Amino acid sequence: MKKPLDYELSRRRLLQLGLAGAAASLLPGGLELALAPTAQAQGLDPLASWNDGPAKQAIFNFVRTTTDSSSPQFVAPRQRIATFDQDGTLWVEHPMYTQVVYCFDRLPAVVKAQPALANVEPFKTVLSGDREAIAKLPTNDLLKVLEVTLTGMSVDDFEAEVQHWLDQARDPRWKRPYTELIYQPMIELLTYLRANHYRTYIVTGGGQDFVRVYAETVYGIPPEQVVGTAGGTSYGYDKDGRPFLTKDPKLLLNDNNAGKPEGIHLMIGRRPFAAFGNSTGDRQMLEYTKAGDGERLAMIVLHDDAKREYAYGPAQGLPDTKVGTFTPALYEEAKSKGWNVISMKNDWNRIFAFEH
Amino acid sequence: MKKPLDYELSRRRLLQLGLAGAAASLLPGGLELALAPTAQAQGLDPLASWNDGPAKQAIFNFVRTTTDSSSPQFVAPRQRIATFDQDGTLWVEHPMYTQVVYCFDRLPAVVKAQPALANVEPFKTVLSGDREAIAKLPTNDLLKVLEVTLTGMSVDDFEAEVQHWLDQARDPRWKRPYTELIYQPMIELLTYLRANHYRTYIVTGGGQDFVRVYAETVYGIPPEQVVGTAGGTSYGYDKDGRPFLTKDPKLLLNDNNAGKPEGIHLMIGRRPFAAFGNSTGDRQMLEYTKAGDGERLAMIVLHDDAKREYAYGPAQGLPDTKVGTFTPALYEEAKSKGWNVISMKNDWNRIFAFEH
Repeated sequence: MKKPLDYELSRRRLLQLGLAGAAASLLPGGLELALAPTAQAQGLDPLASWNDGPAKQAIFNFVRTTTDSSSPQFVAPRQRIATFDQDGTLWVEHPMYTQVVYCFDRLPAVVKAQPALANVEPFKTVLSGDREAIAKLPTNDLLKVLEVTLTGMSVDDFEAEVQHWLDQARDPRWKRPYTELIYQPMIELLTYLRANHYRTYIVTGGGQDFVRVYAETVYGIPPEQVVGTAGGTSYGYDKDGRPFLTKDPKLLLNDNNAGKPEGIHLMIGRRPFAAFGNSTGDRQMLEYTKAGDGERLAMIVLHDDAKREYAYGPAQGLPDTKVGTFTPALYEEAKSKGWNVISMKNDWNRIFAFEH
Repeated sequence: MKKPLDYELSRRRLLQLGLAGAAASLLPGGLELALAPTAQAQGLDPLASWNDGPAKQAIFNFVRTTTDSSSPQFVAPRQRIATFDQDGTLWVEHPMYTQVVYCFDRLPAVVKAQPALANVEPFKTVLSGDREAIAKLPTNDLLKVLEVTLTGMSVDDFEAEVQHWLDQARDPRWKRPYTELIYQPMIELLTYLRANHYRTYIVTGGGQDFVRVYAETVYGIPPEQVVGTAGGTSYGYDKDGRPFLTKDPKLLLNDNNAGKPEGIHLMIGRRPFAAFGNSTGDRQMLEYTKAGDGERLAMIVLHDDAKREYAYGPAQGLPDTKVGTFTPALYEEAKSKGWNVISMKNDWNRIFAFEH
């Protein structure tokens, strides 16, 4: 029979490998201890879609340092918070945010209910389907489309509409549901962090209510761990006196840029120990995370794989004109502040689960 | 060796008794099964401070019905949310909300830093200590005192100030720290629900940042499970370039009345299965909870024990003039909608942990 220390080490190693189930079955007897070396010998890598390299190593180092109770940088489980941007960090954001596709697809039904909108801009242009004209719409016009498609209904009706759309809509390039365009390496990272008692949060510029519809199924992240751009709701009663909430156009939290750390404070109330992003919209979240005491991990995804996904931002040597991308200035800040850059091309041996 | 079903039943019973530790140690072997009947025979009641009666029975029934996987009203663990008002539900709110006491106590330090305030109302009146004059201050004046004492500093400085005050301040009646004026029966209820995989949230009209300072230590409720009246913050950098957040006077969520279900949607995103309150400020939260599908529990604390705590609201047969109390109309709604009334006098054999 091995010593308690051996048991603890083996258990911790299994947890670090993301094998929570195996670790849970480890009893302080000794019999199951053989599992740990076996699992390793069999090459059960919790980050199997990650190539060996500095990014993968940074993740392993961070988890080891913050979960080893003998480490001076040990973090109590209750404080283990990791935050993830969504668009471009957990799933594809190019050429258009999925939620904006939803809003455009949803517009005809809204106009059918309010026919007067059909001849008013910007709705007329969006309904025309003229991609060039749509691409030229100013941000304020885009926000009008978002407003009429994302507010004015009950929260239950909205959830049902989004779910219905997700079931039907297909991405034009991969011909798959948008919810399959999630990065397999990041799914492994979420799972691995959770196995090490990190609570994983999405902190997205996208709509909080929109992302909550699928976050639990797709990422294993429950609604209460989704922080996003959020509008107000209004409490009222239906004709039978049953209470319900209506989605209002009033903006409560613009969860981009400085809004990300502000949203983290509002919704979580703790500074994260790890944060993951891919654009200038994530800059303040990464700064805020990395500036905390002790060991902190800030990582930024570089879209440099035109073949398997897309290449934009500093991977093309020039700033993308799209709002919220990985600019050269952000790339410099990442290097100067010790953020780890994740190269999709070099660090990921697989991008989507459906590829293999 | 007993059958797996027996094991499951025993384990569930232990969980229902709030004995999570004992349940976790129950292995599917048979040896530890003796624990369950023993624990019951020893009278280990998870709600020991509750007298037998309809309130206690309603809690046991609710937990049994929603956690028994063979029950048609079974609720999946991920959906098990219970929300608790704080003032008057988890701790004493009379004669003045503790946070308001904090703001009054804090005012001299604020005026010292901004001497011009000393001769301006309502600060002059509050500084005078004239209780009668203070009691007559209109709500808008009170809000000015809250604003200067609760905003304008970094979130870290605020947390330190509140913690310092909590360590020193004493309630005038019991001569104890305010954090000891928590209702022991409700602490047992929180523990019992958590042992049955309910996630317990505070949903308070009080300041979210204020309550978060002590909620984890006092109630076992982490900051991310405290929903309260919340202001905005502003992201900025100190002279060394380190980012920090400043508390702004901008109100994001007034977590009272309709603001409670709205805040629950914003911060949690799921309708609770159980909710606990004590005043008109909790009315909509209780309605919203109880109106959900399946088995839902809505309970309301009646302050009817002038000797051990206070008696106000319908216990005195007349509405209290204080904002947010248990009015006769609320009492009628509670009865007509099947909310369970908790009588402090009759349902609780102990109110504070320090009493025995």
